[in-house]
Amino acid sequence: MGSDNRKKAVVLLSGGMDSAVVAAMAAAEGFAVHALTFDYGQRHRVELAAAKRQAVLQQMAGHTIFPLPLHLFGGSALTDDIPVPRRAGEAKEGSPGAAIPVTYVPARNAVFLSVALSFAEAIGAADIFIGVSAVDYSGYPDCRPAFIEAFGKVANLGTRMADGGPGFTIHAPLQYLSKEETVRRGLSLGVDFGVTRTCYDPAPDGTPCGTCDACCLREKGFAAAGVVDPGRSPMEENE
Amino acid sequence: MGSDNRKKAVVLLSGGMDSAVVAAMAAAEGFAVHALTFDYGQRHRVELAAAKRQAVLQQMAGHTIFPLPLHLFGGSALTDDIPVPRRAGEAKEGSPGAAIPVTYVPARNAVFLSVALSFAEAIGAADIFIGVSAVDYSGYPDCRPAFIEAFGKVANLGTRMADGGPGFTIHAPLQYLSKEETVRRGLSLGVDFGVTRTCYDPAPDGTPCGTCDACCLREKGFAAAGVVDPGRSPMEENE
Repeated sequence: MGSDNRKKAVVLLSGGMDSAVVAAMAAAEGFAVHALTFDYGQRHRVELAAAKRQAVLQQMAGHTIFPLPLHLFGGSALTDDIPVPRRAGEAKEGSPGAAIPVTYVPARNAVFLSVALSFAEAIGAADIFIGVSAVDYSGYPDCRPAFIEAFGKVANLGTRMADGGPGFTIHAPLQYLSKEETVRRGLSLGVDFGVTRTCYDPAPDGTPCGTCDACCLREKGFAAAGVVDPGRSPMEENE
Repeated sequence: MGSDNRKKAVVLLSGGMDSAVVAAMAAAEGFAVHALTFDYGQRHRVELAAAKRQAVLQQMAGHTIFPLPLHLFGGSALTDDIPVPRRAGEAKEGSPGAAIPVTYVPARNAVFLSVALSFAEAIGAADIFIGVSAVDYSGYPDCRPAFIEAFGKVANLGTRMADGGPGFTIHAPLQYLSKEETVRRGLSLGVDFGVTRTCYDPAPDGTPCGTCDACCLREKGFAAAGVVDPGRSPMEENE
């Protein structure tokens, strides 16, 4: 890594399919990918194992798992003992007025992006990648383009690096892609979707439930792309 | 606390003098103060003891200490083995072009405000208080009014509570106050400054160094207000 002359980018890597594609996109753009994964008390712990394996597979320049105990605050089905809702097949289209589901974690992406910003500034990376999409999504407010844009302003007003320096760019390359397009993009970049986990409420062996919002969106994407999802098998949590 | 009908506010409480005054101001405005203190690996650990004691003294409605290991990223004299700079007496006036000192912690206030936002949303508080000032300050970019304003937009675009709801207000009531004015405001509200610690690099017994940027600003404030600073004695770290 001492002879790595590529520009550094911080990539938020969740262990799911979207961020795996984003990491591959950043690498394809020539960035040295420094992945950042949050252990925020999510009940879907298999995400962390998937993120670790993805970082190795893609030969990322670095991977940091950051403990962030948002579950101390409660208020989400992803971190608390609130049941994860199921839905029957069809993924709803996102719209500003759509109800925000109980899987929403309060201000999660603001926190994730802020910590990514701190990390980026500490390692001298001016580029931050996040895998949000506002097309096939769960309706979370912190996935919308206006939010990402507003955060970019915060990044460039509240940091030393941006103070007369080049400033930060927040990349959200999946912003306007459907899940189908994300699947296709990932396949074209050689992403191994078998090593990604998306489910909000997997079985103890890591097998996705198949009925939560995230599973339904993923299933829709693979079906539309006409390929079989390789990420439906068990996965060890501690690999 | 079950019969507390006051509106909740989240107050960032560092253990220093500014946030103690802000907490008292929030209480004076009628808010139930829910304080949030970060254990971010700061070398001035006595801050945490001071915050705990201040929360008890002011009879705050709640106090959460949130572990946030920003020191994992490095890059600051407040968390690393980089010497804290000394200066001779006169505090410099902040201006956008002023050099940002090595005590700057990358994107700290963006991270702190984001976690405060998550906490506020989880407990149903629409008001967040932060004790930044852009008058007598160390020149940190994340203390400036434009940054606070930009963060307010992030808060109102990236949360469920603001999605058709009342939205969040970021209060920075010391923004345009000098340290002298902050001292006077605190005294008028009965703040016990003896239980606040400001120093970036205190002695092992908690005694302030008297020569760092934070000590100089504090000294200037008390001198201008014409009162003796009661916060110059040792303080136990583990109270």
